[in-house]
Amino acid sequence: MLGCLRAAVAAISADRGAGCVRCRFSMAKSKFEYVRDFETDDTCLPNCWIVVRLDGRNFHRFAEQHEFKKPNDDRALHLMTKCAQTVMQELEDIAIAYGQSDEYSFVFKRKSKWFKRRASKFMTHVVSQFASSYVFYWKDYFKDQQLLYPPGFDGRIVLYPSNQNLKDYLSWRQADCHINNLYNTVFWMLVQRSGLTPVQAQDRLQGTLAGDKNEILFSEFNINYNNEPLMYRKGTVLIWQKVNEVMTKKIKLPKESEEKEVEVTRTRTKVVPLHCDIIGEQFWEEYPEILAEDS
Amino acid sequence: MLGCLRAAVAAISADRGAGCVRCRFSMAKSKFEYVRDFETDDTCLPNCWIVVRLDGRNFHRFAEQHEFKKPNDDRALHLMTKCAQTVMQELEDIAIAYGQSDEYSFVFKRKSKWFKRRASKFMTHVVSQFASSYVFYWKDYFKDQQLLYPPGFDGRIVLYPSNQNLKDYLSWRQADCHINNLYNTVFWMLVQRSGLTPVQAQDRLQGTLAGDKNEILFSEFNINYNNEPLMYRKGTVLIWQKVNEVMTKKIKLPKESEEKEVEVTRTRTKVVPLHCDIIGEQFWEEYPEILAEDS
Amino acid sequence: MLGCLRAAVAAISADRGAGCVRCRFSMAKSKFEYVRDFETDDTCLPNCWIVVRLDGRNFHRFAEQHEFKKPNDDRALHLMTKCAQTVMQELEDIAIAYGQSDEYSFVFKRKSKWFKRRASKFMTHVVSQFASSYVFYWKDYFKDQQLLYPPGFDGRIVLYPSNQNLKDYLSWRQADCHINNLYNTVFWMLVQRSGLTPVQAQDRLQGTLAGDKNEILFSEFNINYNNEPLMYRKGTVLIWQKVNEVMTKKIKLPKESEEKEVEVTRTRTKVVPLHCDIIGEQFWEEYPEILAEDS
Amino acid sequence: MLGCLRAAVAAISADRGAGCVRCRFSMAKSKFEYVRDFETDDTCLPNCWIVVRLDGRNFHRFAEQHEFKKPNDDRALHLMTKCAQTVMQELEDIAIAYGQSDEYSFVFKRKSKWFKRRASKFMTHVVSQFASSYVFYWKDYFKDQQLLYPPGFDGRIVLYPSNQNLKDYLSWRQADCHINNLYNTVFWMLVQRSGLTPVQAQDRLQGTLAGDKNEILFSEFNINYNNEPLMYRKGTVLIWQKVNEVMTKKIKLPKESEEKEVEVTRTRTKVVPLHCDIIGEQFWEEYPEILAEDS
Repeated sequence: MLGCLRAAVAAISADRGAGCVRCRFSMAKSKFEYVRDFETDDTCLPNCWIVVRLDGRNFHRFAEQHEFKKPNDDRALHLMTKCAQTVMQELEDIAIAYGQSDEYSFVFKRKSKWFKRRASKFMTHVVSQFASSYVFYWKDYFKDQQLLYPPGFDGRIVLYPSNQNLKDYLSWRQADCHINNLYNTVFWMLVQRSGLTPVQAQDRLQGTLAGDKNEILFSEFNINYNNEPLMYRKGTVLIWQKVNEVMTKKIKLPKESEEKEVEVTRTRTKVVPLHCDIIGEQFWEEYPEILAEDS
Repeated sequence: MLGCLRAAVAAISADRGAGCVRCRFSMAKSKFEYVRDFETDDTCLPNCWIVVRLDGRNFHRFAEQHEFKKPNDDRALHLMTKCAQTVMQELEDIAIAYGQSDEYSFVFKRKSKWFKRRASKFMTHVVSQFASSYVFYWKDYFKDQQLLYPPGFDGRIVLYPSNQNLKDYLSWRQADCHINNLYNTVFWMLVQRSGLTPVQAQDRLQGTLAGDKNEILFSEFNINYNNEPLMYRKGTVLIWQKVNEVMTKKIKLPKESEEKEVEVTRTRTKVVPLHCDIIGEQFWEEYPEILAEDS
Repeated sequence: MLGCLRAAVAAISADRGAGCVRCRFSMAKSKFEYVRDFETDDTCLPNCWIVVRLDGRNFHRFAEQHEFKKPNDDRALHLMTKCAQTVMQELEDIAIAYGQSDEYSFVFKRKSKWFKRRASKFMTHVVSQFASSYVFYWKDYFKDQQLLYPPGFDGRIVLYPSNQNLKDYLSWRQADCHINNLYNTVFWMLVQRSGLTPVQAQDRLQGTLAGDKNEILFSEFNINYNNEPLMYRKGTVLIWQKVNEVMTKKIKLPKESEEKEVEVTRTRTKVVPLHCDIIGEQFWEEYPEILAEDS
Repeated sequence: MLGCLRAAVAAISADRGAGCVRCRFSMAKSKFEYVRDFETDDTCLPNCWIVVRLDGRNFHRFAEQHEFKKPNDDRALHLMTKCAQTVMQELEDIAIAYGQSDEYSFVFKRKSKWFKRRASKFMTHVVSQFASSYVFYWKDYFKDQQLLYPPGFDGRIVLYPSNQNLKDYLSWRQADCHINNLYNTVFWMLVQRSGLTPVQAQDRLQGTLAGDKNEILFSEFNINYNNEPLMYRKGTVLIWQKVNEVMTKKIKLPKESEEKEVEVTRTRTKVVPLHCDIIGEQFWEEYPEILAEDS
């Protein structure tokens, strides 16, 4: 209120008519600030794995318009993985990520205290970083294909209390990858090579089991599904790995007059993509640190 | 299981060893699918205004590295608004948006049933669309300034049960805009024109009220704060407005041999930016449809 | 740790072997206290009406075993209302309550800050106070009928953002009361007076509309449903009302030698039961203070 | 509407004026039923231990008014345990309960699907059953002490993802029991035996550690705290145990003319109270079935 007076005096003497107008604002702000109480606490239960999964929004249309190769477009898959790597590097506490098609799941450590475990923070940081990276790195993967419009992604968050629950979640996504990719592989063979219309191909596959689809691939197209690229069949797993980087460094030893080139080996932790099975136990035995309590 | 048998037979005769391997996956998938039950319902309470507010992540550093003009960079502000417009056009049911600095608030209609009012859907669609647009449209606003890395944004969701609560929320953000902009305007004057260091400028402003800051601007820099651009002082309000678009169209009338140019007026609903006061009642009286129950 | 030493010394000299055992506990407690972080915040959104509705658990069986009169047992209904009154008097900020059959809804004021609006507090205080009152006051209503076992109740909490939503909630419950009571009235007439078995009565009523049921009551049992007791047809509304209580008090005036009896009128606020329509506007016009913002 | 017509006709002929009034109600009900959509889903995360803890409301005053013996009233403690046993028997899936003073914690199995794991159901069933039992069984424990009014209880719900978290929760409560009971034992000795006022006793204990309190008990009152009853020091653990019940049954064998008494042993599962340490591993090793996955 003292400020008001001073301002009023100043206003009068300077004939600017501004006066209390200004200090109305801080009063106004504090008067309105009660609206902050409407924010609700969305803290994630401690000691649970926090999974954020994102999906491309209307990516069927997006793939169409950007002429994605069917059933798998290497450029699109590698761009997805580049974005996911960026997310893992920019955000905290992501232990592992798994992606296939237009979706990616990010697993935050069960002990993570990042942003006090607030669900909205996890979700929005993941999808916004992913989305901006998608546009930013687009040209590195789609050299001849212009990006026509900025794509959207949706995200959700799920908690898993036990290691087994988390492994089952990732297995669920990888089994889904397999089922979809097998279907899509046959479907697009029927369309692209046998000249069926999409509806005809769909009818042909209706009711077929995995074995049937495999048989069609082998007998009609001479394709052994097992020999299809691992990235298509298994999706992409992103984990942190220690890598040795060898660099050449010029150093000058005290007793010597000239600089000398030496090789320096530095150990760095990097996000590495794998295309392997994560349903069986082998993967988890090979990388026990992912699930380790204090990882 | 029949499929398994068939596949097994095929596998034996074809000596491919694939067999039941495949159908293991659908079985596996259904075995893992229980993990879906861990997703929780995050439906927003009906009949409440849903506000999603996003903020730039580490935008202090981002502004520094991209040489944003201080205290306000028109390019950055216009880019923010372009992204917000894209969000309003691409998503459903946004009645009004308000932005200032590196934040934007989006207000979904209280009757909205978009994505069954799931909070995660609202948040992630807003921030991902905004983030991808930010990179996509960057070059249209920052012509000489390369984007160095993909920025992140965080988002939160808040519900407001009454119209008054919503108006108070928006007033809170606009009062915040005013307070920050007044401070920043004086601060950067002291730094840029009077040659104070940031710490000195901060010390100088410590404890000053709005009137004092106003006085410094006027007496030391001959600036009447009231004459500063409205966009800086009031932020940006985005609303839907009917606009008449006049287009020239070539038509050929049946009885005439030649095409003729005619002017056609089409009414379209567009997202329009305003830089006006939304704390007082005048704005809401002028645009009653924003708060209207069945808007 | 000093305490530990002292205790240890004491333990040795006194040969009691107690020693540090004791102070292990406070250390232990603080070591375990992290489990408090697993409690989640269940604050109710501000500025919403908070409704807690409770229902008797397995009251079909309970009514059977305690020989409730069909279709309405006055003792049971009055006991329910007595418990609800106790809840309103013991707890804070209940503006209105509505009950029928074995259920009662309690409406907390939209501005209530009781227990920081924590949902679990509202729910558990309501149901526990109701349940203990049910046993406590049982004998006042069921004089000849012993209570055989302690009954259970379940509760839920729902938020309503607008006055209209709240009125519609209460209307929903009263419409439900009417529909059930009309059905039950006919059903038990058919069973008790016409000698139908429950299954026969149910078959007879299958598909009948309100008018049909009304007709059966009138033509077969000479009952005009409109003349049935209001408490059965409308349920019970509990509101706060100012009542004048006239008490006789003995006072001694200074100048007089003897005590004198005077009548003193005191205004008290009491919980009053009504059996009226709350679907129409009349009730709300008569008691505007119930919905008043600052009630 | 057909029903309306029929009713209207009937109404006219019978001159009862009831008519469509009735069928307005079912229409009304469906019109109001939208309010059900405001109920939110409060499903507990699967595969977590669900703990409901209840506390007496204002039990300080309640204990005072019902002349509870200080620092521990056996009648009150046994009544609490009787109520907790009733809760375990009446509700589903409670694996273990722990009580001390005026609080009790109930642990539902991590695989429980009772009421679809809805938090409100767990909380309200526990507290209402407990509260009604408290009044119902009061007279069995407080023979000479009338219950003056129906007590209230509050409850909360907490999830624990791992067995260790759950054990730490129970340890936290038992450590709390120890600390409080030690304090209270000394406090009331000072008041009851040494004649200190409560404030003096409080001052005397201010800043003392466990060892100090122990020392006061021993040197001033010749009490070895370790010899205090286990129920006071450890609280009460309730678990399910198989017990053999031997009953005498009269049977008549075909070839014999007379009835004969035989002893029949039946195995039943009962809720059994223990007063033992649950902080160490021993308890959990002795009763591994409590934490067993498929218990």
